[in-house]
Amino acid sequence: MRATVLVRPKPGILDPQGEAVGSALGHLGFEVRDARVGKVIDFEVDATNAADAKAKVERMCEQLLANPLIESYEIEVTA
Amino acid sequence: MRATVLVRPKPGILDPQGEAVGSALGHLGFEVRDARVGKVIDFEVDATNAADAKAKVERMCEQLLANPLIESYEIEVTA
Repeated sequence: MRATVLVRPKPGILDPQGEAVGSALGHLGFEVRDARVGKVIDFEVDATNAADAKAKVERMCEQLLANPLIESYEIEVTA
Repeated sequence: MRATVLVRPKPGILDPQGEAVGSALGHLGFEVRDARVGKVIDFEVDATNAADAKAKVERMCEQLLANPLIESYEIEVTA
């Protein structure tokens, strides 16, 4: 199954990369607010069904893909 | 309006970060294939409607957020 994980800095956590993107867009004439930059991770994982895949990916997030202190994650699984 | 942009390395483009994630997950006992790592960028943008917002964000992607030679992007706009 195909898994997509979105990992984002939690609200209130300093995000220098997001600030840089916001200010660079401003210099180009695009007015944006609250720019935040995170990661998107895609991969194939073996699982018997979507619930099983989601549970596996959740363990991957807790152990490696996200830092739960400062990042939140969102999991999407498609066949 | 709230914009979310997913920027991913194009197929065939080397992705060392994705390879590192895949191999680190393997060491933890999770078998995954084809791991790829990209960016998710969230921000607020002023626009009169969703189509206008999407057109603006597309220009931001072409000019700054993505490198169209090696990255593809996906735009989502919500009110």
